[in-house]
Amino acid sequence: MQKLTIVKIGGNIIDNPSELEKAIKKFALLPGLKLLVHGGGKIASEISERLNIKPNLIDGRRITDEDSLEVVQMVYAGLINKNIVANLQKYDCPAVGLSGADANSLLAHKRPVKEIDYGLVGDLDQVNSDIIRKLIEIPLVPVFCALTHDGKGQILNTNADTIAAEIGIALSKYYKVTLIFSFEKAGVLLDIQIEESLLPKLDNETYKKLKSDKVIADGMIPKLDNAFRSLENGVKEVYITNFNTTELENKVKFNGTKLTLV
Amino acid sequence: MQKLTIVKIGGNIIDNPSELEKAIKKFALLPGLKLLVHGGGKIASEISERLNIKPNLIDGRRITDEDSLEVVQMVYAGLINKNIVANLQKYDCPAVGLSGADANSLLAHKRPVKEIDYGLVGDLDQVNSDIIRKLIEIPLVPVFCALTHDGKGQILNTNADTIAAEIGIALSKYYKVTLIFSFEKAGVLLDIQIEESLLPKLDNETYKKLKSDKVIADGMIPKLDNAFRSLENGVKEVYITNFNTTELENKVKFNGTKLTLV
Repeated sequence: MQKLTIVKIGGNIIDNPSELEKAIKKFALLPGLKLLVHGGGKIASEISERLNIKPNLIDGRRITDEDSLEVVQMVYAGLINKNIVANLQKYDCPAVGLSGADANSLLAHKRPVKEIDYGLVGDLDQVNSDIIRKLIEIPLVPVFCALTHDGKGQILNTNADTIAAEIGIALSKYYKVTLIFSFEKAGVLLDIQIEESLLPKLDNETYKKLKSDKVIADGMIPKLDNAFRSLENGVKEVYITNFNTTELENKVKFNGTKLTLV
Repeated sequence: MQKLTIVKIGGNIIDNPSELEKAIKKFALLPGLKLLVHGGGKIASEISERLNIKPNLIDGRRITDEDSLEVVQMVYAGLINKNIVANLQKYDCPAVGLSGADANSLLAHKRPVKEIDYGLVGDLDQVNSDIIRKLIEIPLVPVFCALTHDGKGQILNTNADTIAAEIGIALSKYYKVTLIFSFEKAGVLLDIQIEESLLPKLDNETYKKLKSDKVIADGMIPKLDNAFRSLENGVKEVYITNFNTTELENKVKFNGTKLTLV
């Protein structure tokens, strides 16, 4: 089995031009087969505001109505995705930008309405690993934005961490997958204020305990849930890290927190 | 050699939801290998206006400055391209949306500054026919928006008719290419006011004469120049037509004006 590295970069990198430039260069220089998933950052909110589209919040939750989806589609698939792709080409990385509608790669359904109607938000049903493999083997480097589709003509907004995890799981049947969840911190911190409290390793049992003790909370929980789920379902290695601290000299070394299973 | 049909649809179809829906369905039902190129329509201007980006006009010519390029990138590659791709998937057409940066498919250079600096407008240098063929043979159906890149990280705005013509020429080494330039009229009209003045055929010599007699003028000239250039450089068949009048029953029949060489 060949190795495949999947890197997910989030808003903190997308919103910062010099960090984004660094991440693009690092990703382009990563040896071997690879795939990028990117989030959206704050640009979509800024464009919404300039277009005078009011954020639709219910109980503090952001609802993706039709106008918001248009903005997200423009910003994720048009502005950010094509900027990343064009800049990867600069480093001879044969990137191809994709939404989940492209090549029917990511099928989802609109999240069912329970207490809240989230609007045009998609829960992933199927990663078309056949087509993604064919693209990788051309060889191309897929660059996914956080959009899926329902197969009936509707684009849907889907969490980028979930997309990265599910692509990782689906492709782990064919590749030895390393999955990197990049974010603004050095990794999982015991005290969010103190960089020195970085955990170099974190296993699933310790994670459960830290979660019930409320040491790990908020946005870290869905991220780590995605990360551990991918590790439990075929992905070989998972790191929570700031991707830009990756060392590429001699041998690739991902810093941050390495997740393990007990 | 296999047949390949390339269809270029323009603003008149993009701007009209029911015409666009019809074109998408017709394209999805076209048998054989195929490729779509789409223009931008008026949406980019509307979004620019809403974002309070003033059109930059010099001597009546629209200049693509950085702000305008961002809008064009969002609207062409994000909004329109992904809507078309998602709707083609609805009809089981395995579409993949591409800008020229994707898979390094269309390389261009910024148009040199002479009397006018057009800004971030690209003149095509190279169609990467190898990679486009590999995508077609997966099999996928490439859907190109009117954006190219310079290989140095810059996206550029490029005329969709030119992109369609140059892709047609480049792929004519490998396929028997039929090229359809779709627009709002039935085809080339001798009198633009009278649909009945449609020319079912037009050869290059007659075109030259009609051009010097000013019977054919304005926007038709670059379109027909592109069309005849493609015919002179390997493309087998070229039609100027309203693509939505294409007949698909029994045998495919493109209506409008068929171009020929004498």
